[in-house]
Amino acid sequence: MVQKISLAFQNIVLSQIVKISERVREKAVEFEKTHKKPFIRFQRGDLGIDIPAYVRDAINEGLEKGLTKYPKSGGEPWFKDAVINHLEEMGIKNIKRDNVIATYGGQEGLQLVFSLFRGSKCLAFSPCWSCMLDNIFPYSETDYKLLPLKENFEIDFDEFEKNLKHSDILYLNNPHNPTGKVFTYEELERINHLCKKYDVLIVSDEAYKDIIFDNNRFHSMLEFDNKDVVSVFTFSKSFAATGFRAGYTVSRNSFIIEKMTLGDYSQTAGVVTFIQYAFKVALENKEEKDKWLKWFLNKLKKRRDIAYEELKEFVKDVYKPGGTFYFFVNLKDLIKKEVKNYDEYILDLLIENGVAVTPGSAFGRDFEGFIRISTSALEENLIKEGIKRIGEIFKSI
Amino acid sequence: MVQKISLAFQNIVLSQIVKISERVREKAVEFEKTHKKPFIRFQRGDLGIDIPAYVRDAINEGLEKGLTKYPKSGGEPWFKDAVINHLEEMGIKNIKRDNVIATYGGQEGLQLVFSLFRGSKCLAFSPCWSCMLDNIFPYSETDYKLLPLKENFEIDFDEFEKNLKHSDILYLNNPHNPTGKVFTYEELERINHLCKKYDVLIVSDEAYKDIIFDNNRFHSMLEFDNKDVVSVFTFSKSFAATGFRAGYTVSRNSFIIEKMTLGDYSQTAGVVTFIQYAFKVALENKEEKDKWLKWFLNKLKKRRDIAYEELKEFVKDVYKPGGTFYFFVNLKDLIKKEVKNYDEYILDLLIENGVAVTPGSAFGRDFEGFIRISTSALEENLIKEGIKRIGEIFKSI
Repeated sequence: MVQKISLAFQNIVLSQIVKISERVREKAVEFEKTHKKPFIRFQRGDLGIDIPAYVRDAINEGLEKGLTKYPKSGGEPWFKDAVINHLEEMGIKNIKRDNVIATYGGQEGLQLVFSLFRGSKCLAFSPCWSCMLDNIFPYSETDYKLLPLKENFEIDFDEFEKNLKHSDILYLNNPHNPTGKVFTYEELERINHLCKKYDVLIVSDEAYKDIIFDNNRFHSMLEFDNKDVVSVFTFSKSFAATGFRAGYTVSRNSFIIEKMTLGDYSQTAGVVTFIQYAFKVALENKEEKDKWLKWFLNKLKKRRDIAYEELKEFVKDVYKPGGTFYFFVNLKDLIKKEVKNYDEYILDLLIENGVAVTPGSAFGRDFEGFIRISTSALEENLIKEGIKRIGEIFKSI
Repeated sequence: MVQKISLAFQNIVLSQIVKISERVREKAVEFEKTHKKPFIRFQRGDLGIDIPAYVRDAINEGLEKGLTKYPKSGGEPWFKDAVINHLEEMGIKNIKRDNVIATYGGQEGLQLVFSLFRGSKCLAFSPCWSCMLDNIFPYSETDYKLLPLKENFEIDFDEFEKNLKHSDILYLNNPHNPTGKVFTYEELERINHLCKKYDVLIVSDEAYKDIIFDNNRFHSMLEFDNKDVVSVFTFSKSFAATGFRAGYTVSRNSFIIEKMTLGDYSQTAGVVTFIQYAFKVALENKEEKDKWLKWFLNKLKKRRDIAYEELKEFVKDVYKPGGTFYFFVNLKDLIKKEVKNYDEYILDLLIENGVAVTPGSAFGRDFEGFIRISTSALEENLIKEGIKRIGEIFKSI
């Protein structure tokens, strides 16, 4: 038999977050039995909120319309039109059908564009979404370099420019997982300018575009006059629909979209037809969409606020995320003793005391001693209790 | 910007069948206007039949159960268990959860296993499913060789053995698209024996396993005691559900399934959760399943029979397919004059006269002058009218 598996499959690993979830499964039962209190899971980026009813109803409409046969390669024209109109509302003009492809979540969009340019040199800010490090980069054999964000997650533009000179692609994630940073227009403008200067393709992962708080404003990289931008979107987060695996990718470079379409066809023969219909409706029913997003964001903001207040109790200078549902917190300074591996130490300590988080090194080696807290899956009271518990643990050591 | 796209994306092309469908779209309107009779489409392998109601209902059940969040990587345990039980009913024993992966149709199963062994040497019988030639092989950079089936689509086992010696993988498609051949147990046994002898991995595409007529019997390659078999299944054809993009792949080699699972996770993050639920129900509700398959097969058999009777009127020794909904017919002998490109000649002639088919060369160069007729999308009267029309065209030249 063939002995050699392809390089693409040699280095991908099971996501650390999945590994932690599996490790925690048994532990949690034990913990809850012994301590008569809930085991609290902050590790997952899934949503403890139902999808909006009008999107669920649209699945039925799609089935009733008989949208159960082979999808059109790259996406149905009516799906693409709904996306184009949605982008226009966001101020992004002149997108045509051949600039849009329907994908299985944002993940397939990222995988396809990186596989298309297999083996490219990619620059990314760190901390960096763990799935890029564990899956997308190794699967596409991307030669990536991580450029750490500075204090307060600011960009070191000198270092950025230096590194950009040797890069083919910039991977940008805005709003940013795991920090919750929403890049400002000025930052994005400067990034765009430098990428054009050095002829670097921008792959902009905009999965959290709708989850923005306070006075922050989301800007898509598509707002800039740059053909070499590929913006990757998903319905997963905006509509609490992670299990629908629906998303879309947009680029003014129609060659890239054409090639991604052929790749998507080769991989899956296209995105489930009636799911495309449901998200066409999700975008086009503006009344329901606005109602949903208002309710949804209010809920997520409350979760963020309570987490922020509790974290401030024991962490200095907590970064208040402008978007997403993550906190990326440095716990290293709270550990007064010598520790070999901060991530292992923290993870063991927390799990033992009934809390799961994602360790910082999942997002880049420089972030050992950090944790990512996701507030998306839990009600406020549990968020409060969980973070209080982390504080108590760290006060006691 | 990166100038070089990966080899995988360089050679994949838009499926010929899709191209013909697009070419025909305008032509058909014109034809119907001028001739006041229907343009008849035999080119597509899609189904002109609704999905069973109980499967559609199960989509709703899945949504109501809240199966709208991230799927478990590789498939939900309850989905895998339904597959395992289904295989047991087919006489395939000792399959465990780590031998099964949920995929987006059969297509993703094939793509993943060939991508896992990227660049392998693959042997395949021809005619060969066009999507392998246009998409799966080039996308996985597979170095394939086609071994033509003999008259009556028999296997030349001497040639087979000779070629197997230089192969890593055998791609088998049973029941066979485009001929409708159902491989006998004896053929499969001999194939299995030889593949084991030369240590060749068998990738067995069993998409049409439920579409079997007369006294034919389907045998999966999984029936043999061979760890190095990967059988690829889909719900697309059995349940007229091509747009649901649901399937599964099974191998006793759990290493292959583990790697495919990581690949699938990297590509899509897994198969839509409530769709997995719908097909769990599709398999487990045996009463409804049997009722559906009986009705469905009866309908498809009538379509096959009428096509067969009509084809016999003008083609010598028509091969009567034991399964699938395809006829692969040699029209070359009916053309009495010198023709440069038989496929182009036939296609132009037929389209002009209001019939679309898939030309033989889509399934391998040796089959220029053949056509594939798919009876899946049309009612009996149109099948009859369409094939009569082909006969008349060829009588008149």
